[in-house]
Amino acid sequence: MNLKQHIEIMLPAIEKELQDQVARLDASHTRQFHEMLTYHMGWTGEGAGREATGKRIRPLIVLLATASAGADWQHSLPAAAAVELVHNFSLVHDDVQDNSEKRRGRETVWKKWGVPMAINVGDAMFVMSNQAVMDLVKTHPASTVVRAATILHDTCLDLTRGQFLDMFYEERNDLSLEDYWPMVGGKTSALLSACTQIGALLGNAGEAEQETYRQFGYHLGLAFQVQDDILGIWGDEAVTGKSAASDLVEGKNSLPVLYALGKQDKFAKRWKQGPITASEVKAVAAQLEEEGGRSYAEEMSEKETQIALKYLNEANPRGAAGESMLELANMLLKRNQ
Amino acid sequence: MNLKQHIEIMLPAIEKELQDQVARLDASHTRQFHEMLTYHMGWTGEGAGREATGKRIRPLIVLLATASAGADWQHSLPAAAAVELVHNFSLVHDDVQDNSEKRRGRETVWKKWGVPMAINVGDAMFVMSNQAVMDLVKTHPASTVVRAATILHDTCLDLTRGQFLDMFYEERNDLSLEDYWPMVGGKTSALLSACTQIGALLGNAGEAEQETYRQFGYHLGLAFQVQDDILGIWGDEAVTGKSAASDLVEGKNSLPVLYALGKQDKFAKRWKQGPITASEVKAVAAQLEEEGGRSYAEEMSEKETQIALKYLNEANPRGAAGESMLELANMLLKRNQ
Repeated sequence: MNLKQHIEIMLPAIEKELQDQVARLDASHTRQFHEMLTYHMGWTGEGAGREATGKRIRPLIVLLATASAGADWQHSLPAAAAVELVHNFSLVHDDVQDNSEKRRGRETVWKKWGVPMAINVGDAMFVMSNQAVMDLVKTHPASTVVRAATILHDTCLDLTRGQFLDMFYEERNDLSLEDYWPMVGGKTSALLSACTQIGALLGNAGEAEQETYRQFGYHLGLAFQVQDDILGIWGDEAVTGKSAASDLVEGKNSLPVLYALGKQDKFAKRWKQGPITASEVKAVAAQLEEEGGRSYAEEMSEKETQIALKYLNEANPRGAAGESMLELANMLLKRNQ
Repeated sequence: MNLKQHIEIMLPAIEKELQDQVARLDASHTRQFHEMLTYHMGWTGEGAGREATGKRIRPLIVLLATASAGADWQHSLPAAAAVELVHNFSLVHDDVQDNSEKRRGRETVWKKWGVPMAINVGDAMFVMSNQAVMDLVKTHPASTVVRAATILHDTCLDLTRGQFLDMFYEERNDLSLEDYWPMVGGKTSALLSACTQIGALLGNAGEAEQETYRQFGYHLGLAFQVQDDILGIWGDEAVTGKSAASDLVEGKNSLPVLYALGKQDKFAKRWKQGPITASEVKAVAAQLEEEGGRSYAEEMSEKETQIALKYLNEANPRGAAGESMLELANMLLKRNQ
């Protein structure tokens, strides 16, 4: 069974589990509330469908990690739903915080129902992620459930830390490279490392093996984030789906930018003068590349990719699921095997 | 030992536990984030102190329930911190949702640091409530921790339900009595019932006894909420600290109002015409009283009080802690023993 086949059997099971979890709100007097959640999850409303649900990468990683560690992935479905609910809770709150009107091509929850409702929708998804983890008790010892929940909670605190730093740094243009890693470590990486660690835990992996899986997920997240930073400045619009270089216009504290700020050269001077306009973007991106921002980020991405793959190799994922996990990692890191 | 003495030994222990839980964010690069939480909790910033922390009623109830059921309340401290963190998370988000600029006489978190930061502060407190529950594993079997966490999560979903209904009903002036109970059941009552139930669970109470404690907390919450509704219209400003009848001006869907709407008489007619102005308040409150809104609410409050006390009596709380629990209930219900 290859990755495509794994996805074909796992995705419907993930979707079913998510729908069951979210159905907790499907009572007569909270029907409209339930609809806000099913809309955000991509199941209902205008534009519903595969495009709107997102790729469900995180729950897939949980299930593949469990299967790679040698256990039945079906027993990890509640955990898979939990990480996806955490991810979506953070998206709903993010969209309010960033004032984003669109998400996956559709109006965001706050845009449709207002900020107060959107805050509550995010809160409810967060609660459901916790309830989903507790559902593991049907097939796992209570001590394992407590461990899985603890990993997830610690991850969620990391998410709020990353979110804080992201917002806190927004108004600053004097950051340095060392400010980068705590910020991104708390975003993409924290949740991906929880996916691989919890997946391995539920796959009955020992402590050391769980830690290896965790490290794999963490560095996978870092490599992915740095790639995203590169694409956000030099990416092909047709591929990324967002206007290239938009990260420069938005003033995002990405890795290439923080690297170049340390150089205190032309780019840094321009950056500190205030927002980059659309007409300047090409020249500023070229300057940033000339000062080594791009090659530094590519080097870091390659380094984190190698570390991630080293840990994955060390975890020695088993069978077809193990191969699919490697395939997924390569796909996320946009490497051709 | 009476209630006052119980409070004197329990409050510092609660405060210490809360500070330890919130200290999870006290790292160098998230210091400003940590400060937002300690400010809201009433420990730091302008106006910090006892007035700013709130009364910590909920954690006190957890500890008294554990002691009443016959166990060491000190082992329930993480659970006590958890419910107080849930309460405070909901306050921080509530203040954003209600656009409230003041809380306990001080500027609210969103007013000081903006809406995006306040959402994140609430999220972090919510995460910490979950982490606090997991800390119970140091002194309790994992199965008990899973049970306590499940009770708390179910309660949190009830809170989001109550919050949804509260906001959803805000724009409506055609509600009826039956819309009232699901709304308030998800607010004050849900969390108070979790306090008594989790307290009893950690006090090694059996299933039936836990359920009795839960019912006590639930009806205590309902009685308390209805009393709050009455005070919000006919209360003595000097006692309640907020301008009497302000609930009428704010258009709050309180029990007396919903009762009178069902009468479809003069009050209902005026209510449906739009916001009550300050100059009308006295006359409208008098009309509401004439149509039976006040006496109905008083009747319901008395009824719920009796049910609450019946359950508390049935739970047969032990020793001095049991007597303090009864004293606390009477205090909350503003009854003189």
